[in-house]
Amino acid sequence: MKVKVSRKAHFNAAHRLYRKDWSFEKNDAIFGKCNNPKFHGHNYDLIVSVTGEIDPETGYVMDMKILKDLIKQEVEEAFDHKNLNMDVPEFTELNPTAENIAVVIWNKLRPHIDPENEIEVVLYETPRNFVTYSG
Amino acid sequence: MKVKVSRKAHFNAAHRLYRKDWSFEKNDAIFGKCNNPKFHGHNYDLIVSVTGEIDPETGYVMDMKILKDLIKQEVEEAFDHKNLNMDVPEFTELNPTAENIAVVIWNKLRPHIDPENEIEVVLYETPRNFVTYSG
Amino acid sequence: MKVKVSRKAHFNAAHRLYRKDWSFEKNDAIFGKCNNPKFHGHNYDLIVSVTGEIDPETGYVMDMKILKDLIKQEVEEAFDHKNLNMDVPEFTELNPTAENIAVVIWNKLRPHIDPENEIEVVLYETPRNFVTYSG
Amino acid sequence: MKVKVSRKAHFNAAHRLYRKDWSFEKNDAIFGKCNNPKFHGHNYDLIVSVTGEIDPETGYVMDMKILKDLIKQEVEEAFDHKNLNMDVPEFTELNPTAENIAVVIWNKLRPHIDPENEIEVVLYETPRNFVTYSG
Amino acid sequence: MKVKVSRKAHFNAAHRLYRKDWSFEKNDAIFGKCNNPKFHGHNYDLIVSVTGEIDPETGYVMDMKILKDLIKQEVEEAFDHKNLNMDVPEFTELNPTAENIAVVIWNKLRPHIDPENEIEVVLYETPRNFVTYSG
Amino acid sequence: MKVKVSRKAHFNAAHRLYRKDWSFEKNDAIFGKCNNPKFHGHNYDLIVSVTGEIDPETGYVMDMKILKDLIKQEVEEAFDHKNLNMDVPEFTELNPTAENIAVVIWNKLRPHIDPENEIEVVLYETPRNFVTYSG
Repeated sequence: MKVKVSRKAHFNAAHRLYRKDWSFEKNDAIFGKCNNPKFHGHNYDLIVSVTGEIDPETGYVMDMKILKDLIKQEVEEAFDHKNLNMDVPEFTELNPTAENIAVVIWNKLRPHIDPENEIEVVLYETPRNFVTYSG
Repeated sequence: MKVKVSRKAHFNAAHRLYRKDWSFEKNDAIFGKCNNPKFHGHNYDLIVSVTGEIDPETGYVMDMKILKDLIKQEVEEAFDHKNLNMDVPEFTELNPTAENIAVVIWNKLRPHIDPENEIEVVLYETPRNFVTYSG
Repeated sequence: MKVKVSRKAHFNAAHRLYRKDWSFEKNDAIFGKCNNPKFHGHNYDLIVSVTGEIDPETGYVMDMKILKDLIKQEVEEAFDHKNLNMDVPEFTELNPTAENIAVVIWNKLRPHIDPENEIEVVLYETPRNFVTYSG
Repeated sequence: MKVKVSRKAHFNAAHRLYRKDWSFEKNDAIFGKCNNPKFHGHNYDLIVSVTGEIDPETGYVMDMKILKDLIKQEVEEAFDHKNLNMDVPEFTELNPTAENIAVVIWNKLRPHIDPENEIEVVLYETPRNFVTYSG
Repeated sequence: MKVKVSRKAHFNAAHRLYRKDWSFEKNDAIFGKCNNPKFHGHNYDLIVSVTGEIDPETGYVMDMKILKDLIKQEVEEAFDHKNLNMDVPEFTELNPTAENIAVVIWNKLRPHIDPENEIEVVLYETPRNFVTYSG
Repeated sequence: MKVKVSRKAHFNAAHRLYRKDWSFEKNDAIFGKCNNPKFHGHNYDLIVSVTGEIDPETGYVMDMKILKDLIKQEVEEAFDHKNLNMDVPEFTELNPTAENIAVVIWNKLRPHIDPENEIEVVLYETPRNFVTYSG
């Protein structure tokens, strides 16, 4: 019996959308006010889901406390109260769009979760804009 | 890397559930208080999702501002502060159930979005009743 | 020890903002798209609060089940799935703005609640527009 | 045209996570504070979704009132204001984790819904912990 | 310049509403299904607000981290994953209604907060039932 | 009949909590990770309420569209997608704590609203931390 278990977390970060190899004008045309060179920020809400068989011993797919601690260690400690462009190595050359952040989070979590289980990452940049990545 | 990007919108509208070719009694038996001939209404919440490859240039699947403007042009301007049965041509002969509204919205958006990308429409009639249509 | 106890409820209704004694043009100038003659509608969320002393016998200010049933009887049965302008006598001559609806609800509840207790009505027309009336 | 229709419900219950065949120490090591022998509790939020063809007569996949009443009869009456371990026969021998509760709910609903339609159960133990089961 | 600063927290607990000095029948008549002798439970949401002058040095009324830690120490550690009637001394003789829990929380916090500042406690027993106590 | 009408808005911004006249060590001791010199950010939710008499002509205390436009012009255009410390003149010398931002917003709105009406500003820095200022 496969069940998807989901855990919600959040982090607050500054970011700016732009490419170093583009002119300011081109960045401005593509990214608009998200290209403010002094940055803006978000309260990111994150839902990480793990799909797998229920362990008949415990009744768990995965202990939620372990998933909570893993998200804290891999995501919150790296991203919370940070400037994504300047403080987070993954975004030195990669534009921190919601899509790219979700992929980075998925890649950071994948090695720590049973390879037989599937992972899904939902990232809310705002309550109205969000993305989903499943690998 | 396929990612699903989602944008939330809303509109407020009046509607009535009934079929013109049924008697009032039959409409009443099937649709109950939703068949009030003087209409009732809802704050509809809408989530439109587009699934496709991340553009390596921009880091976007689709610019959320374009999706926001498209929803505004195709859905909000047509449905917001309207009587769905009387003001919206698609529902002249089609019963505006949540299911049918979601299909109509999907069909209105489909021609405007890259045909390689999939579309999903989630429509909340109330916070407790909602429907999902993916084509 | 005075405590405020609050109960949330909701109803779905159609309405139109206008005055019969004004021209369509004047109604349109003041009420804009809320003046659609074919109506639009909302999911109204309602919070009714009663402030009074805790009864030392029960530990209740007021039994929430009684408050829930009172809101159902006085508000939901009168307003839910109705056209406020056409189906609800209080709005035959009174414009059903959120402000006026809140006052009407307060007046309908007042006679049924211990006169030593204060009443507050919060009415959400949308999640972004709401009003508060305390008598 | 296949559409997924979803209905949200809730129930409040006490529970304890443990196995009778394990020592208190082993239960404590695995289930931590969820193993409090005097129980703790939750406001469980439940979303039941049914996926099927839209009936061209009614515009419904399934009448939401029937789904609402079915959830009330099969889930709310059995679980609401109950101690899951002591009052609900399904959990006499089965640990009431969110995963197992979701499977039990799915199994209780399955016989009452058109076998051509798929069912999905989402169960929120808290707003931050939830599970999804689709059979 | 007086500002009210608010911090949201939560705890999950089991409880039962009843008086030891009443018969089961009387408890049942007054408290209904809340009187289940095997307990039920809730996810309680708590908002603690402190009103006072902004410190011109820091721009804070009160450091939110201190308020967060105080709520954790005084409320969450005492109430979370507990049976309020059996595990929490304040409710040995006091019926754990939402009203009484809010008063107990207010009394536990009061000695730890600057006496020049006012405190308000809002306690959600469910998203639809909540109480407010300000001393 | 006095009614409070409320309008919700939001803006996304970067900020840093610190005083220029303090050492980094002192800022760090007081403001912790909020003192990240490269900034972090938030989705700020804002509720502006205006309390006054219902205009018997319109049934409005204040036209919500006017309040919405006023918040857009005075707050969203000044703060959204900005770095509060660097882009917003009011915070050149003033620490952008939630308390101070709420006071600045109140002061920006006050001259534009009927002086007979009271104003209240609620500002959510996160869903768990928020402040209220009423002048």
